[in-house]
Amino acid sequence: MTPEEFRLSGYAVVDWIARYMEELEDYPVLSPARPGEIRARLPPRAPEAGEPLEAMLRDLDEIVLPGVTHWQSPNFFAYFSANASAPAILGDLVSSGLGVQGMLWATSPAATELETHVLDWLVEMLDLPEEFSSRSSGGGVIQDTASSAALCALLAARERVSDFQINQRGVDRPLVAYASAQAHSSIEKAVKVAGIGRENLTLIDVDERYAMRPQALVEAIRADKEVGRIPFFVAATVGTTSSSAIDPLKAIGEICRGHHLWLHVDAAYAGSAAVCPELRFIHDGVELATSYCFNPHKWLLTNFDCDVFYVADRATLIRTLSVLPEYLKNRATESGAVLDYRDWHVPLGRRFRALKLWFVIRHYGVEGLRRHIRRHVALAKEFATWVEEDARFELAAPVPLSLVCFRHVGGDEVNQRLMDRLNASGEIYLTHTKLDDKLTLRLAICGTYTEHRHVEQAWRLIREAAAMGHPEPTGPGKAEPGQ
Amino acid sequence: MTPEEFRLSGYAVVDWIARYMEELEDYPVLSPARPGEIRARLPPRAPEAGEPLEAMLRDLDEIVLPGVTHWQSPNFFAYFSANASAPAILGDLVSSGLGVQGMLWATSPAATELETHVLDWLVEMLDLPEEFSSRSSGGGVIQDTASSAALCALLAARERVSDFQINQRGVDRPLVAYASAQAHSSIEKAVKVAGIGRENLTLIDVDERYAMRPQALVEAIRADKEVGRIPFFVAATVGTTSSSAIDPLKAIGEICRGHHLWLHVDAAYAGSAAVCPELRFIHDGVELATSYCFNPHKWLLTNFDCDVFYVADRATLIRTLSVLPEYLKNRATESGAVLDYRDWHVPLGRRFRALKLWFVIRHYGVEGLRRHIRRHVALAKEFATWVEEDARFELAAPVPLSLVCFRHVGGDEVNQRLMDRLNASGEIYLTHTKLDDKLTLRLAICGTYTEHRHVEQAWRLIREAAAMGHPEPTGPGKAEPGQ
Repeated sequence: MTPEEFRLSGYAVVDWIARYMEELEDYPVLSPARPGEIRARLPPRAPEAGEPLEAMLRDLDEIVLPGVTHWQSPNFFAYFSANASAPAILGDLVSSGLGVQGMLWATSPAATELETHVLDWLVEMLDLPEEFSSRSSGGGVIQDTASSAALCALLAARERVSDFQINQRGVDRPLVAYASAQAHSSIEKAVKVAGIGRENLTLIDVDERYAMRPQALVEAIRADKEVGRIPFFVAATVGTTSSSAIDPLKAIGEICRGHHLWLHVDAAYAGSAAVCPELRFIHDGVELATSYCFNPHKWLLTNFDCDVFYVADRATLIRTLSVLPEYLKNRATESGAVLDYRDWHVPLGRRFRALKLWFVIRHYGVEGLRRHIRRHVALAKEFATWVEEDARFELAAPVPLSLVCFRHVGGDEVNQRLMDRLNASGEIYLTHTKLDDKLTLRLAICGTYTEHRHVEQAWRLIREAAAMGHPEPTGPGKAEPGQ
Repeated sequence: MTPEEFRLSGYAVVDWIARYMEELEDYPVLSPARPGEIRARLPPRAPEAGEPLEAMLRDLDEIVLPGVTHWQSPNFFAYFSANASAPAILGDLVSSGLGVQGMLWATSPAATELETHVLDWLVEMLDLPEEFSSRSSGGGVIQDTASSAALCALLAARERVSDFQINQRGVDRPLVAYASAQAHSSIEKAVKVAGIGRENLTLIDVDERYAMRPQALVEAIRADKEVGRIPFFVAATVGTTSSSAIDPLKAIGEICRGHHLWLHVDAAYAGSAAVCPELRFIHDGVELATSYCFNPHKWLLTNFDCDVFYVADRATLIRTLSVLPEYLKNRATESGAVLDYRDWHVPLGRRFRALKLWFVIRHYGVEGLRRHIRRHVALAKEFATWVEEDARFELAAPVPLSLVCFRHVGGDEVNQRLMDRLNASGEIYLTHTKLDDKLTLRLAICGTYTEHRHVEQAWRLIREAAAMGHPEPTGPGKAEPGQ
């Protein structure tokens, strides 16, 4: 494809996406596809000869779109969204077009320096501790997900507590990590990956707001120390996945300082809110964190993947993850004057992901990002009042930000049926969790295009579905589409 | 940004990339930027108000491009390339535009099914073992890099040998892994991450072609077993980073079968060559592999990140990496009729990366991909004959594919100066390794746009630089730009 052909094909793909954006609301949010349905429409083997772009675009419409769950739909309220935006898409397109691989500073200085710079911007934008800035002892790096960030934090903590012996010898002592019982599953996954073992992750009780109870943490640490185990790592969550609960960082941080434990703060969803000064209460105590992450791809208009991971002491992270073979040696690295981000995560290669974040911040400006967050928070508060005012429904957790946890009276089956009916309608998509062992519906408002009318419509649909009473459950032989 | 504004902005970015493609040869391949130079030109804080796209495009030209090392330049011969192509860029653009997150089948059935399907196509295209197909006991998944693939393979092997006890208890027995002394640093990194420990990775001697000596592997396993260590994992390489050496898979595989060891085959760079029947000798014995990966982003025209990872037994991989919290439960997963790729790697979230691979395979067709590989292999063979015919130079390793390892007579300093001079010229970029402890230049021919004239020019530049004799080394106070 010549540059001129690329230009024309590129216009056609841009047109396709613009049309998709225009029609986004018309699609069923949750794909109605059944297992195997997409594959059955694809040819069994790769084409021998090349095909024109028109064939791919046609198949996107006819085969792919019916199998897509529309995460960018304004009626997508499931999980936490993976929100994209036009400037993010364009920044990522530039990244694809440049095609640089930023494993080392030397392999594209701009890829490293722009990332460091924009991540320093974010420290100021969110009023994060100065230690997280690259101009201090720490610094930030873009990871794919908060799962990978948690793993890197855990590994650095593992090395710090073992004086970097475990990288050499393997896990050789009874380490123990802590997280709240509401922490994300990625903490459990990291503990397994790192060779610590699931039974050496102690889940700490939560209070009535689903936040970690510091006193329970103190007691767990004491009990573990008494039997000779070695506490080394605490994961605190700012905005849990189930209910957006906020662990008390200050109390937890002081406990960690007292026992010399690594405190990792996972603010994957909620962190973005701190662009608004009035919402910075979520980070109260974050200055005690050893590492921290949040996902601009969840709530800061930047398309997946973009998790931002900070450490207060970059030397420990780098020493943990650095391996320097001959073929990667270069003068810039040896000079010590540069950062090589390959030493900040597990993968060696890396995309130029800072571009999309740079485009987003510049396109919206800090004020625009604040407006975006404030709009969602206001919508969630309003939705919560509707729930409170309707006797058939109850709030299941506080609503500090833009996630509303609620349930219909009458037990799990009623709520499961209600959710199934709503999702099968294609008009909205929401997911569930369990709180106090009760099935709970989650309405997460963080979509780029979600406006007041969509939230209003969601509430109307929920009430209508509830008013339809209790339908028979789906017959046993019949799979529910995409649920 | 409205869809219509996105359309116009999208055209502008496509134009910017098309112009970049047209001018690619005019830029110095290796960025001449000095540490800190890019950052110094960026504003110290994020803008409060939004900026127009024109401002970003201007800064791309004025600030970013001077700091870019042009991986897509036809004169980029360093490392292994991270090659992109127009259809890959466009497929990735569609992925950004759709903005779906394919962690579960249910969160976008098409994202999972297209990935499974295209990876099954590749099994046939490369004539890989049928066990790697999803229609058999195994299957493929896209990972970001071969580093992550190696980690997942190692973890699954760790769980298999411990009957899935280590995920629960942590590393509790003296495991030992093997790789050749020429294996990629990612194996060492994986062994550290997984809590096995560097001293429990035994590096096996290589032969005169830099390939693993099977007899040395047998002896190492025997010696380890005698002292009570537990061998469990062997990483073999098809196309080492230093010299594209090919470990003898058949012999290694039989040893692994005999000792019940997991055999992971890392074909990150070389695997793509197997689209050509005449190059499938590289995979002789791959039917004995337990897992396998190669990187379409290295030599199959697909932009970073796209590593393709296969296992012969998906159940073991899934059991190793699966954690299922309430908020991810869904009927499709419970039915067992679908694959949830979140259980195939460390991150939870995932982009719709199959689109770019699908676009590439369909745009070029299998025949087009074969032509691309054959062209590079022929160019490398021709370059190797030029080296052989010039008395000042020698080949440092066999040239089975498209990497030529060579050196100038006269020792490391001569070669270092030669490389520095070439790279500082901006006209080509190549990197080095050490073979037999001697500094060796690597010319990797895998760029999308690299043609005969570029390889000819590279050889001319190399000879001219060599003919300039031995300049004084750069003064001590002066940093070498970007090296």
